[in-house]
Amino acid sequence: MKLTDLGEREIIKRIAPLLSTAENTLEIGDDCAVIDLGKNLLLITTDMVNAETHLPEEITPWQIGWFSIAVNLSDIAAKGGTPYGLVLALGLPRSLDEDFIKELVEGANSCATTYDTAIVGGDTKETRFITITGTAVGIVPKGEFMSRVGAKVGDLVAVTGNLGKAAAGYYALKHDIKGKKELAQGLMEPTPRLPEGRVLASTGAVTSCMDISDGLSSSLYQLQEANNVGFEIDFSNIPISEEISELRSHVDVDVPDFALHFGGDYELLLTLTPSRFKDAQDVLEKSGGSLTCIGRVIDGEKIYLTSQEGKQILPNKGYEHFTDKTIRF
Amino acid sequence: MKLTDLGEREIIKRIAPLLSTAENTLEIGDDCAVIDLGKNLLLITTDMVNAETHLPEEITPWQIGWFSIAVNLSDIAAKGGTPYGLVLALGLPRSLDEDFIKELVEGANSCATTYDTAIVGGDTKETRFITITGTAVGIVPKGEFMSRVGAKVGDLVAVTGNLGKAAAGYYALKHDIKGKKELAQGLMEPTPRLPEGRVLASTGAVTSCMDISDGLSSSLYQLQEANNVGFEIDFSNIPISEEISELRSHVDVDVPDFALHFGGDYELLLTLTPSRFKDAQDVLEKSGGSLTCIGRVIDGEKIYLTSQEGKQILPNKGYEHFTDKTIRF
Repeated sequence: MKLTDLGEREIIKRIAPLLSTAENTLEIGDDCAVIDLGKNLLLITTDMVNAETHLPEEITPWQIGWFSIAVNLSDIAAKGGTPYGLVLALGLPRSLDEDFIKELVEGANSCATTYDTAIVGGDTKETRFITITGTAVGIVPKGEFMSRVGAKVGDLVAVTGNLGKAAAGYYALKHDIKGKKELAQGLMEPTPRLPEGRVLASTGAVTSCMDISDGLSSSLYQLQEANNVGFEIDFSNIPISEEISELRSHVDVDVPDFALHFGGDYELLLTLTPSRFKDAQDVLEKSGGSLTCIGRVIDGEKIYLTSQEGKQILPNKGYEHFTDKTIRF
Repeated sequence: MKLTDLGEREIIKRIAPLLSTAENTLEIGDDCAVIDLGKNLLLITTDMVNAETHLPEEITPWQIGWFSIAVNLSDIAAKGGTPYGLVLALGLPRSLDEDFIKELVEGANSCATTYDTAIVGGDTKETRFITITGTAVGIVPKGEFMSRVGAKVGDLVAVTGNLGKAAAGYYALKHDIKGKKELAQGLMEPTPRLPEGRVLASTGAVTSCMDISDGLSSSLYQLQEANNVGFEIDFSNIPISEEISELRSHVDVDVPDFALHFGGDYELLLTLTPSRFKDAQDVLEKSGGSLTCIGRVIDGEKIYLTSQEGKQILPNKGYEHFTDKTIRF
């Protein structure tokens, strides 16, 4: 079997059993690896970004740097952690200009300092195409770790922020829409939900959590599989980003596709104990964030979407590496 | 300026000032990034391995996996640390076969478990060429951290193990020497000196330390620059690996070039307080390692090599990424 026939998630499933687990580590497959430090858990996450296959060509060096750090901080956020620091391995073509790499590093540094952390080390190597691996370490009190596993039937399903901004940005770039640079900012400079993750973790209301890197539908299917439950999602409750409204003032676009199936929003997807949802929402809003209930956890292993077209099975169309499974606008 | 005009070490020098440092982190430029945990230091190191430009084509998938882990553990070893765990980001072409990636992961896992640690997480992404970034985290008691900085005039210079095995292996492969597979094992499956690093750190005799990833001469020049001292190295004291003797039974080779200027041996290079050298050597030998004095720290910023040809300045010919500065056999 070739990797393209398997897809990223199946590859990971086949790799995981080959790895010996240490006594102090949890299962592979969560957003972060976890090492038990006693009172706290050490979180480690690594993300490789390949500029050739993974980023729009319009992205600036500064934004490549920001992006490489943000995607790692998003994983720390999804576990309720506080980042300790990051290391950055830069694979760079030898013909690259010094200014390009300086701007890239400045973008990476800016993202790290925005979230009160720092790039503490790294590596540079020659590669044919720009390939960047960021690795973040962080910490979370053991009792506040937000696992991917723990959703119970009856829990509410919620997301932070709004969805569809990355899709709107991507569409605007591809179709040369007026204001495309501003529209694409959410795609190029994602916002890791670190303060939101920390606040949510401290409420104790969250039963499972992950970040939405590959699109809402893909994330829901991953969460469903990890928890052996089903979901009922109400499309009318999904918070749609302003970028989509802005885009619709120029062109007619398929809003559900943008909000449900396109990756890159890096909001948090979580399940919460119903009786504690309101408290969690209030405390998050007080700290400047937002939390929207989009559905609930149900028995069985199906995901239903209720929309104007009635109730149907949610298609699993999100992005997956190695496959051609991605929306082409 | 293009990266090829700068070379890896100059690029890092230009990147470092662009990074904001956090209060709890030490200076960039050591083998590991260091985060102050109070009683202990958390060590983080990351290394990108690009199979296309960085590894011999004869390397097996299993060995690529071993290598990717070993080079990171070597950095933990050089600081006297104990590894906590590793994450592995795999950049893979989509046409790659599942068996290839399974063997690679088995090699990586084997290296981790050999040194009592584990791969605790990772990432897979599509890349045009195999590109692997390993990141190791480890821990060292604060008083036992072996910095790159601390060498004093009068200290002894020493190395663990023997030098030249990676060079001998590379030569054997390139020239199709009998027994090339065995000769190249040191090149393909380097031995991170973790037990040695730990033992040396606990003696308190070490004043500075780094691993020899890019060759002895290159490492000496890096250590010299970090410490603003000079070295006097006696070639006759350098411990030469058995692989070179084995190779010389087939062909006539330039032993100094092999032992001084070729990367990939991953032994430790260190300076020690003279009065404590013998104790450190004894305790290392009792635990199955070896330590050889190859020279001493002198005033001034020059590195002298004494050999049959008299005393001369040691050429700085080791490997450097982005440049063509490498020995071609």
